Amino acid sequence: MTADALTDLSRPLAARQAIRHGQWQRHTSGLAPGYAQANLVILPVRYAEDFLRFCQRNPRACPLLDVTDPGDPHPRSLGTDIDLRHDVPRYRVYRNGISSAEPTHIAEMWQDDFVTFSIGCSFSFEDALIADGLEVRHIQLGRNVPMYRTQVPLEPSGPFGGNLVVSMRPFKPADAIRAIQITTDMPRVHGAPVHIGLPTSLGIADLARPDFGDAPVIHDDELAVFWACGVTPQAALEAAGLPLAITHSPGHMLITDIPNHRLKFG
Amino acid sequence: MTADALTDLSRPLAARQAIRHGQWQRHTSGLAPGYAQANLVILPVRYAEDFLRFCQRNPRACPLLDVTDPGDPHPRSLGTDIDLRHDVPRYRVYRNGISSAEPTHIAEMWQDDFVTFSIGCSFSFEDALIADGLEVRHIQLGRNVPMYRTQVPLEPSGPFGGNLVVSMRPFKPADAIRAIQITTDMPRVHGAPVHIGLPTSLGIADLARPDFGDAPVIHDDELAVFWACGVTPQAALEAAGLPLAITHSPGHMLITDIPNHRLKFG
Repeated sequence: MTADALTDLSRPLAARQAIRHGQWQRHTSGLAPGYAQANLVILPVRYAEDFLRFCQRNPRACPLLDVTDPGDPHPRSLGTDIDLRHDVPRYRVYRNGISSAEPTHIAEMWQDDFVTFSIGCSFSFEDALIADGLEVRHIQLGRNVPMYRTQVPLEPSGPFGGNLVVSMRPFKPADAIRAIQITTDMPRVHGAPVHIGLPTSLGIADLARPDFGDAPVIHDDELAVFWACGVTPQAALEAAGLPLAITHSPGHMLITDIPNHRLKFG
Repeated sequence: MTADALTDLSRPLAARQAIRHGQWQRHTSGLAPGYAQANLVILPVRYAEDFLRFCQRNPRACPLLDVTDPGDPHPRSLGTDIDLRHDVPRYRVYRNGISSAEPTHIAEMWQDDFVTFSIGCSFSFEDALIADGLEVRHIQLGRNVPMYRTQVPLEPSGPFGGNLVVSMRPFKPADAIRAIQITTDMPRVHGAPVHIGLPTSLGIADLARPDFGDAPVIHDDELAVFWACGVTPQAALEAAGLPLAITHSPGHMLITDIPNHRLKFG
């Protein structure tokens, strides 16, 4: 499938069908524009309660859009006919905290005790920032957002803990204030920034060297604005070293039927 | 009247009565805590339309709480039995743009064509910041807020124009974000900050030397956060050089019956 076929993937259900049938195995960025995409964490139920509590305690990093009943592969609040065993282009399977495989579906390894957490994603608030006329630098440059491990401790729960991971977007001061206002109204997709302007306060030594993503371009008249990042739960999951856990592969998200503008006001 | 009598001045009407009868001629800071105080601009009607348009075009600097009909000394939306000829502890009379007197009432010089503009004041949002648990530095230190002339041009109207004046409060980054969120919801009392973190972008050369108020104390882990300031309309008024205009004397505000929390959401 080529970029020419992207028009066919402009609706969430059609995009998921293409993914389900193996016709799209790449990043989901740009698919079904205007609709929320989600980070996935799939865990056996015996870890799910601790992880649910972890998300509740760290809502900026882990804003929950949906949690399934054990064994249910359908996140019913996120859209019609979503099958979590097939509908993500690429999964990542962790065994003992180590990434061991990146399959395109997980039907064969699905368990009756799997609980799936769908976690809000910054794509949604970036959409809102751009719609408001703000320039989102990494998108304009066609790069990945820069992400940093901080020294800000998370509220732990059971085996889940560690430090917050943040994403960074540079803005002129007045635009930074506007970005704070816009994302404040979107708590289900990370919400307001957690920090602005003084990266060393977060324990970030060098903005030019992110831990994930691409290096930023920041102008002299701009401030670095930091949001809690969906990589945080993934990092916590790796550190927990569970026997088995599954996530989406970075950038290969679950496409939902929820319009981004519906994520305003929680 | 001594500070011991302050308990009698805890309600707006009682405070205004004391002012009206000459029993209180000092700053209004601390009187009727929890109730909004207002900046005043009183103009002959022939300048009022231009000034009204000036306020509408510069709402962050000149958020209008009330505009009277010509000759009416009662700002009817701000409380019961308010008399603009008596109810401010000290007025400032400008002739040809020059401050010429600071009387305690203006009954003798009242004109049938006077229009009074009551403009929201930062006292209200500072109340909200403190209620949220934030430290407002100049209040904690018992100082006046530092204010700066900027190089940010206002939208002119008739004889009114010039540059924005801002007030500055330092906060740690996470508190700065919180302060932005809180004041965003209070557009009638200056609303969200206009700038954060890079004073030279506003044309402010040295934060240690404010144009009005007291020098600030800013810690290394704090950002300077700037709000549009009620001194802006006063500066515009002086620059306009009208034959006659009256304001409150700085710090000697009109006490209204409006609880500060009623100023949320506009």
